Amino acid sequence: MDFSISNTDKNARRGIVKTAHGAFQTPAFMPVGTAGAVKALTCEDLESCGAEIILGNTYHLYLRPGHELIERLGGLASFNGWNKPTLTDSGGFQVMSLSDKLKISEDGVEFASVIDGSLHLFTPERAIDIQRSIGADIIMSFDQCPPADCEREFAEEAVERTARWAERGLKHFAKQNSENDTRQALFGIVQGWTDKELRRRSVGQITGLDFPGYSIGGLAVGESKSLLNEMTAFTTELLPADKPRYLMGVGYPEDILMAVAAGVDMFDCVLPTRNARTGLVFTSEGPLVYRNATNSEDDRPLDANCECRVCQRYSRAYIRHLYNQKEITAHILATYHSTYFYQNLMSGIRQAIESHSFTEFRGKFLERYLS
Amino acid sequence: MDFSISNTDKNARRGIVKTAHGAFQTPAFMPVGTAGAVKALTCEDLESCGAEIILGNTYHLYLRPGHELIERLGGLASFNGWNKPTLTDSGGFQVMSLSDKLKISEDGVEFASVIDGSLHLFTPERAIDIQRSIGADIIMSFDQCPPADCEREFAEEAVERTARWAERGLKHFAKQNSENDTRQALFGIVQGWTDKELRRRSVGQITGLDFPGYSIGGLAVGESKSLLNEMTAFTTELLPADKPRYLMGVGYPEDILMAVAAGVDMFDCVLPTRNARTGLVFTSEGPLVYRNATNSEDDRPLDANCECRVCQRYSRAYIRHLYNQKEITAHILATYHSTYFYQNLMSGIRQAIESHSFTEFRGKFLERYLS
Repeated sequence: MDFSISNTDKNARRGIVKTAHGAFQTPAFMPVGTAGAVKALTCEDLESCGAEIILGNTYHLYLRPGHELIERLGGLASFNGWNKPTLTDSGGFQVMSLSDKLKISEDGVEFASVIDGSLHLFTPERAIDIQRSIGADIIMSFDQCPPADCEREFAEEAVERTARWAERGLKHFAKQNSENDTRQALFGIVQGWTDKELRRRSVGQITGLDFPGYSIGGLAVGESKSLLNEMTAFTTELLPADKPRYLMGVGYPEDILMAVAAGVDMFDCVLPTRNARTGLVFTSEGPLVYRNATNSEDDRPLDANCECRVCQRYSRAYIRHLYNQKEITAHILATYHSTYFYQNLMSGIRQAIESHSFTEFRGKFLERYLS
Repeated sequence: MDFSISNTDKNARRGIVKTAHGAFQTPAFMPVGTAGAVKALTCEDLESCGAEIILGNTYHLYLRPGHELIERLGGLASFNGWNKPTLTDSGGFQVMSLSDKLKISEDGVEFASVIDGSLHLFTPERAIDIQRSIGADIIMSFDQCPPADCEREFAEEAVERTARWAERGLKHFAKQNSENDTRQALFGIVQGWTDKELRRRSVGQITGLDFPGYSIGGLAVGESKSLLNEMTAFTTELLPADKPRYLMGVGYPEDILMAVAAGVDMFDCVLPTRNARTGLVFTSEGPLVYRNATNSEDDRPLDANCECRVCQRYSRAYIRHLYNQKEITAHILATYHSTYFYQNLMSGIRQAIESHSFTEFRGKFLERYLS
């Protein structure tokens, strides 16, 4: 993996990441393809929306169809037909948020599968092995992500354990990789709750291990918007300037704009796709609950300012009708629009940084979006 | 509506139907868009599959979102973004197959909505009014379609009632339409069970009313394949040569080839789309149950002989995995392939008729398909 920055605008950065499956432009938003596919979209849809990298969830892919099957079929980007850059999380977040019978120890995390209740163990080494089999271009260290409402002592333990796990994972990764095997890049994950001292300590520990990229974890897990903003800016500033910075699980358009201003390069979130399937899309004039009865005879597109093919052709009234009839096509159309909207936002952000007008771009976007 | 035949090959016909929303080539297969959308596809998908006309179900559209709402939003082809030819059934088949509290009288059929149990009455006149509001280019007479296992006496009554209803509907349609209003074409529906005498009688009654096209109803409702073939050929031969012939609810690829050989011009069926959503696709080598475990590591496309974009990109293993994970994208990919497969079959049929090689085309197709 190779990362280079072509433009900066204050703290905002415009760059490119080159991987074994091709390049993607940053700041980048990665649609989430939990089980390999971004729900309700095809790869052709993702391409025409402008997505250049998608994320897969290690936890889900490990359980079904299994990382070994994916490896036998050529790795994730071959298995799912995407053939472009991919990233996997470490599985840690899902293990801890979705599973029963959780046992966290120094060795790792034992958990019961959401599918059949069978017991599994993820360790820092195992998370690397699984992600090597899945074969994404960018993979993650196994970390411990505490909830926003935990005690400081618990958050501090998580910081320390995350540091020890990062070191174990990195060693294991290095042992498996010859020096010339640069197919995958392993990112370290910074934790630290909503406490600046813990954040600073975690950044020191993780950047001390010299990963090719750094993820900011432990945010967007229930804390307030102002704490998200404060912690993102605080953490980002401490990270090395020459490595890509990935803010995990973020977020709303306004959060992305805030984080880009702070110097973040990569994002992922299920918001645009999950909300699309439950009746809400993102538009230039703010979120639109398209399932509402007020749209029943509204022949306007979801977003009058959007050039996506859904907004060129379909009305709110029609998409709402399909949603009410539980038609799959409602999910397709709404997901396509919101995915396009996010990619179009990122494209606008990148152009604005190039022309040193990011602050103005952000202001104009938010003025319309929040009005 | 205008119908012209450009080529014949024995009884098979190659033609074109021109409507207020554009033309479609015959023999034509119409994907079924029950609630306006063909399930799991967009209009763009339908276009790239080669579909030129789609069908909407009057029963469903009447209940939700309501024919009056569709009319206010410009009619079906405007409401659903298709902007090309559409056809609606009369609602009769769904009323009788889906509804409770059915009361069939000379006036019409009273039924309880599948959605909320509310009582509704469809009469021959009401079916026309509703279809005029929905605004499809081709609409259907209100008929009575008896099940395959009924008594002959019941089937005979249905023939007689269908004839009286056809006359009432046609009169009502003519009264509403000025002579210059040729936006919609009303087809008559022939019934007659699996009894040649009844079929002959029904054809005589319905063609005596001089509709611009004729539908063959009451088949593919549970009778044997040989009776379907026999009745299709028998009925088709009695219909006027210069009007389009529409075999309702058919069917499997082999049935379509049989019916084209008999001189049928139009088809519709939920098979390709419904089966795709339950784990089966149609391929050049016959039906494939893609959900089966035998496909779990099969990296071949659904159909190695298919040029659709799904077969160019995705493996059976991947689509099966998505199906097992209840991912919408499985439905999208499988539905797209089967819809393309059917449209590609129709395209092959049309080319074969043009080159007077339909018998050879059919033989070759079936040899591979049934092997």
